[in-house]
Amino acid sequence: MVLYKGITLQTACFFYMLFFSTAILAQQPADFVNPFIGTSNFGATFPGPIAPRGMASISPFNVSGSQNRPLEKDSQWLSNPYVNENKFLTGFSQVNLSGVGCPDLGVILVMPTTGIVETNHLKYGSTYSNEVAKTAYYGLNIDKYNVKAEFTASKRVGVSKFTFPKGQSNILLNLGLGLTNEEGAMVRVVSSTEIEGMRSVGSFCYNSPEDAYPVYFVAKFSKPADKFGVWKKPAKYKGVEAQWMGYNGKARMMENTIKTVVGDSIGSYFRYNFEKEETVEVKIGISYVSIENARENLEKEVGTKSFDAVYKETYNEWNEELSKILVEGGSKDENTIFYTALYHTLIHPNILNDFNGEYPEIKRSKIGKTDDTRYTVFSLWDSYRNLHQLMSLVYPKQQSDMVKSMLEMYDENGWLPKWELNSTETFTMVGDPASIVITDTYLKGIRDFDVQKAYTAMLKGADQIENNPLRQGLKDYIEKGYLTTNDRGPVSTTQEYNASDYSISLLAKALGKTKDANRLKKRSLSYKKLFDKNLKLLRPRTFDGKWYEPFDPVSGANFQENVGFIEGNAWQYAFMVPHDIKGLMKLMGGEKDFSNQLQKVFDSKQFDMANEPDIAYPYLFNYIKGEEFKSQEMVKKLVKEYFQNKPKGLPGNDDTGTMSAWLVYSMMGIYPIAPGEPIYTITTPMFDKITIALDAPYYKNKSIVIEREKNKEGHIKAIQLDGKAHNSFFISHDEFVNGTTLKIIQN
Amino acid sequence: MVLYKGITLQTACFFYMLFFSTAILAQQPADFVNPFIGTSNFGATFPGPIAPRGMASISPFNVSGSQNRPLEKDSQWLSNPYVNENKFLTGFSQVNLSGVGCPDLGVILVMPTTGIVETNHLKYGSTYSNEVAKTAYYGLNIDKYNVKAEFTASKRVGVSKFTFPKGQSNILLNLGLGLTNEEGAMVRVVSSTEIEGMRSVGSFCYNSPEDAYPVYFVAKFSKPADKFGVWKKPAKYKGVEAQWMGYNGKARMMENTIKTVVGDSIGSYFRYNFEKEETVEVKIGISYVSIENARENLEKEVGTKSFDAVYKETYNEWNEELSKILVEGGSKDENTIFYTALYHTLIHPNILNDFNGEYPEIKRSKIGKTDDTRYTVFSLWDSYRNLHQLMSLVYPKQQSDMVKSMLEMYDENGWLPKWELNSTETFTMVGDPASIVITDTYLKGIRDFDVQKAYTAMLKGADQIENNPLRQGLKDYIEKGYLTTNDRGPVSTTQEYNASDYSISLLAKALGKTKDANRLKKRSLSYKKLFDKNLKLLRPRTFDGKWYEPFDPVSGANFQENVGFIEGNAWQYAFMVPHDIKGLMKLMGGEKDFSNQLQKVFDSKQFDMANEPDIAYPYLFNYIKGEEFKSQEMVKKLVKEYFQNKPKGLPGNDDTGTMSAWLVYSMMGIYPIAPGEPIYTITTPMFDKITIALDAPYYKNKSIVIEREKNKEGHIKAIQLDGKAHNSFFISHDEFVNGTTLKIIQN
Repeated sequence: MVLYKGITLQTACFFYMLFFSTAILAQQPADFVNPFIGTSNFGATFPGPIAPRGMASISPFNVSGSQNRPLEKDSQWLSNPYVNENKFLTGFSQVNLSGVGCPDLGVILVMPTTGIVETNHLKYGSTYSNEVAKTAYYGLNIDKYNVKAEFTASKRVGVSKFTFPKGQSNILLNLGLGLTNEEGAMVRVVSSTEIEGMRSVGSFCYNSPEDAYPVYFVAKFSKPADKFGVWKKPAKYKGVEAQWMGYNGKARMMENTIKTVVGDSIGSYFRYNFEKEETVEVKIGISYVSIENARENLEKEVGTKSFDAVYKETYNEWNEELSKILVEGGSKDENTIFYTALYHTLIHPNILNDFNGEYPEIKRSKIGKTDDTRYTVFSLWDSYRNLHQLMSLVYPKQQSDMVKSMLEMYDENGWLPKWELNSTETFTMVGDPASIVITDTYLKGIRDFDVQKAYTAMLKGADQIENNPLRQGLKDYIEKGYLTTNDRGPVSTTQEYNASDYSISLLAKALGKTKDANRLKKRSLSYKKLFDKNLKLLRPRTFDGKWYEPFDPVSGANFQENVGFIEGNAWQYAFMVPHDIKGLMKLMGGEKDFSNQLQKVFDSKQFDMANEPDIAYPYLFNYIKGEEFKSQEMVKKLVKEYFQNKPKGLPGNDDTGTMSAWLVYSMMGIYPIAPGEPIYTITTPMFDKITIALDAPYYKNKSIVIEREKNKEGHIKAIQLDGKAHNSFFISHDEFVNGTTLKIIQN
Repeated sequence: MVLYKGITLQTACFFYMLFFSTAILAQQPADFVNPFIGTSNFGATFPGPIAPRGMASISPFNVSGSQNRPLEKDSQWLSNPYVNENKFLTGFSQVNLSGVGCPDLGVILVMPTTGIVETNHLKYGSTYSNEVAKTAYYGLNIDKYNVKAEFTASKRVGVSKFTFPKGQSNILLNLGLGLTNEEGAMVRVVSSTEIEGMRSVGSFCYNSPEDAYPVYFVAKFSKPADKFGVWKKPAKYKGVEAQWMGYNGKARMMENTIKTVVGDSIGSYFRYNFEKEETVEVKIGISYVSIENARENLEKEVGTKSFDAVYKETYNEWNEELSKILVEGGSKDENTIFYTALYHTLIHPNILNDFNGEYPEIKRSKIGKTDDTRYTVFSLWDSYRNLHQLMSLVYPKQQSDMVKSMLEMYDENGWLPKWELNSTETFTMVGDPASIVITDTYLKGIRDFDVQKAYTAMLKGADQIENNPLRQGLKDYIEKGYLTTNDRGPVSTTQEYNASDYSISLLAKALGKTKDANRLKKRSLSYKKLFDKNLKLLRPRTFDGKWYEPFDPVSGANFQENVGFIEGNAWQYAFMVPHDIKGLMKLMGGEKDFSNQLQKVFDSKQFDMANEPDIAYPYLFNYIKGEEFKSQEMVKKLVKEYFQNKPKGLPGNDDTGTMSAWLVYSMMGIYPIAPGEPIYTITTPMFDKITIALDAPYYKNKSIVIEREKNKEGHIKAIQLDGKAHNSFFISHDEFVNGTTLKIIQN
């Protein structure tokens, strides 16, 4: 074998493997992911590395400092650690939320610097260049220090790799600065290669401050520090004694100490004096249970593996997950937005349990233990609409574990989750969406959970009038059929309860509980009492039953507060009765009037692609025979307009993957139009061929293919399932997954 | 055996033993201790329980809240957790300093309450009644809650016993409120019977804030809590986001949580619902190393022992220590002030090492381990004068371990200690007193330490001009013989260095290092350059050698700041050259002038019994033949005037036992007049007979007795050692400890 002079066989093989794998992987789904998508336009995603459903993740943190205004975290409501157009970087946070609407996590900031130790982030911060973001990898150059910083992550461990120039270098671990509104941290240098500690987070959406909780961590460094230390900047004391405190309010530098330090504004630093360019890898294990578990997570999951090894493993894991759907015939941009969307649906819910199975139970009064996976970050008001439906189809084992996690929460807390975040119930948004998700899962044949318990839990949420944390205004809802203007967002909330009640009625029916089924089905139609025949819209009523006056159907768009609706207006909610579109049609005066009113939403620009209540609207034309082409056109138009291969390429907040799930389904040509019901509606796929893997034991077929005819741009003229005509724009989940090929034939 | 109906043999035996032991113990030294002495008049002692040289101690905490003004901790410089005349109690602190001049420790406050949980100490605080304080025991009734609270302690564990009335009761663990000026704590409820955490303390005397350090603790409760929780009152947030924080600045109650909570104002509560009167015991283990060590300290030292068992053990330990000196012929008050003083000399220095031998090294860059005892709290500017001399005589093993601890500090830090507090060097006060203590110990025959290392350490402090943290102004001192007004307290500091240099010269001589001995002896007399012949006082000089003007010899009394002296004035320092009284006498013009000048200090009321510089003055008349009676009269007068069996019964701050050591020696009729030199001067004992145990292997005799003739009040007319005339008012340590009886014969 001929080798270049000075290159060993080992090195040669390494490059060969690298080339080989790169060559192969260039065609792989994971290579299409562009983590910058959603990092602008309030998409609230982050570009840094994370493993599928990882607990740990690394995000560049560039939302602090006046240089970053207006998208500066302390000057407005800002829910992301990174904004693509910002320029001033102050570290790399080790736990992050993706696509949420409130600031939280974004803590444990690592930052490499050079020269003397500066602990004030406004002073040590820097601009950066040469950003690279791809699956499981993020890298950049930090201009001020000429340091190259690269990042990857396993499920519970973030791995940073810093290439320092010759000279004095520092790695800061800033436990003060963070995206969360909580403060408070603890740190202890264990040795010259290890730091442990915790950081308080919580008060998500400025709620439930009493549930604020710790993220524990252990950081291991590949090279022992020459010097280390801890800093603390205490609050300024204002009493009589201040006269004797020459140090009052000043930062304290504590060198070479192994004591435990607590405070709101603290951190630790490792110092190196390099005689030549050197790299240091920092591995940070995370746990929501304890420092010991964080250490075990680090050791068992990463141990002595190199940065490159971790990167490769996580890349492969992603590629395997993303390959569950193989698309053919798309452009590079189409592939990119599709796989990035799928990637975004595989971030939350994420694992909460440690390597040893332990996790904090809801309310943190106990440590639980699981043999499966305990999931967390359930933004159910968002995700009940399509994300869990995507999981049930493509990742049924994950969806099953998610349902089991929800039932564990019920065991721990007495209630199903609503917006659960790291074992805190944040009670964000309205409605009682867990029932819809569980019913949907069960009716799709994923049944390896305790459905009786689930059913009991659902009924408790639906029927317990007193002290019910899930359903505010339930008494009015049951007695009057609707919430009144005495409650927040009474129309929206009534609609949400209707949808949940319908799902519960479906499950009741499946379980043979006919009486409950009938009772709840009836309840699910009570939205009709809010239907104003003159406006052909739903409209809030006051406690005494009168229409709320003055009423402006347009008010409430763009997240303005308004009486009647939550994050939306009358137009954006008018059609949100997915379980009773036929009934609504009747109310509106039939197909024609329904169609006109629906079209009006789009024509009057009341349709909001950026929020959930109306995201199924584009598909509603499918309910009107002969107007299905309108859905096909509308979906295509919206995808083109709002979903693009660029940082602004999401219509708005990704809502923990809900927007992305909408895109994945929409590009595949099917959509779970009625959450809770195992049914899809059909539109034109955006690829020639889509192969969806179907996992045993949940599905008997290995895969299902969706095909469209190549080079056709026209409306759908026929649909075939396994070669036979399928004379409907709707298809049940069972029909679909038991088929082999769903063929969409266009004009 | 006839027993009362219903009383078992076991119970009867218990009462018998109790009676028996009480009857016996009524005569025991430990029964004479009145822990209230020094709890007023800024004595800064505390009345709660502590074991001899204990790390843990419990003090009622009554220095917070406007009810306690003017002696309220936040409204003035106040260095004690308890003031006898205060009335508003807010808890019981679990680590405390005794007789120091700056606020520190006084943290981990336990407080029993009833009714709803109130966490604001200004609201939950109460008056109290029926205070009882005795050796190893403190108890009172908490008026507001009708709770009886009792306390005892072992070396590293505080034990509280609360007797609650029927109903809802609470035990609070307040980690916010504290005497220290530091803030920051961490707490975690481990189970319904256990809490762990830490509290930051430090910045002693408003110095060295970067050395602030944690006290770790584990609290175990004898009854499982019905409910428990943690509270946190965060700082009020002032930014834009405050508008969304309905909870801003409010205390958060976190029920039944086992999460770690950190913050400046946090605490934990245990709740009980008692159907009848019930007691709960709380055992709190302390460690300066780790929570694990605090737990081990608790388990190994106390474990399942009852309150009474712990009390008894600690009582017995005290009694054994105090019985090293047995006095006869004193009144109850005399016995009380004597044994209370001896008790106060056995509090600091205290143990720092955990049960397993671990302790934080100086600067907390390592955890050390000892097989002996690592001592801490060395207020050497105070204690070099007489306290360590008392230890060398009566507790030589302890003194040996104290010297070893000082040498360990040198190993860890590169310097001998000056004012060491829990492994931080506070650099409080001036001088370089460790050399004096070590020399004194060595010359008294306690030599089981590395004297060569000690000598090297002393010389480093004495000679290293640059970066010498012990001796400020050393360059001037060496070049000019004195510090100038460019430095703080130049006259006092020169005197301190003289005294240290003299001690080092003594040790040099003993080690055969003649050259050093001569050099340092010469240096030790440089105070003479500050002697103003006109005033017959020492006086500060400016950098160019001129007398500092204007000069007021009286200025500086009562702790006023003044140029020239530290905590004193020219009169209070004029005679503080204990190693060269003969030389000073010559300077002053001979015995007569010396005597007149000395008498003037007392006559002009410049003598300050409450501070160290002049505390040997009363004994200086012994240097003048024929005037020894003046010392006898003066010492007697001062004891009577300043040392009494009442809270105000110390002249001022006990200075970690230095004032008490003065009393112990003074009442025994001997005083270590020249620190560093193994010599005592003699005055009239205040008991008929004093038997001092002499411990092997340091001493060959088992004890030495000091006798005075009964019923005599006159001046000393003769002194006999073992029946032979001792024709001097001075006696060497060797002569003394090798004797059997020192008899003082009075007119």
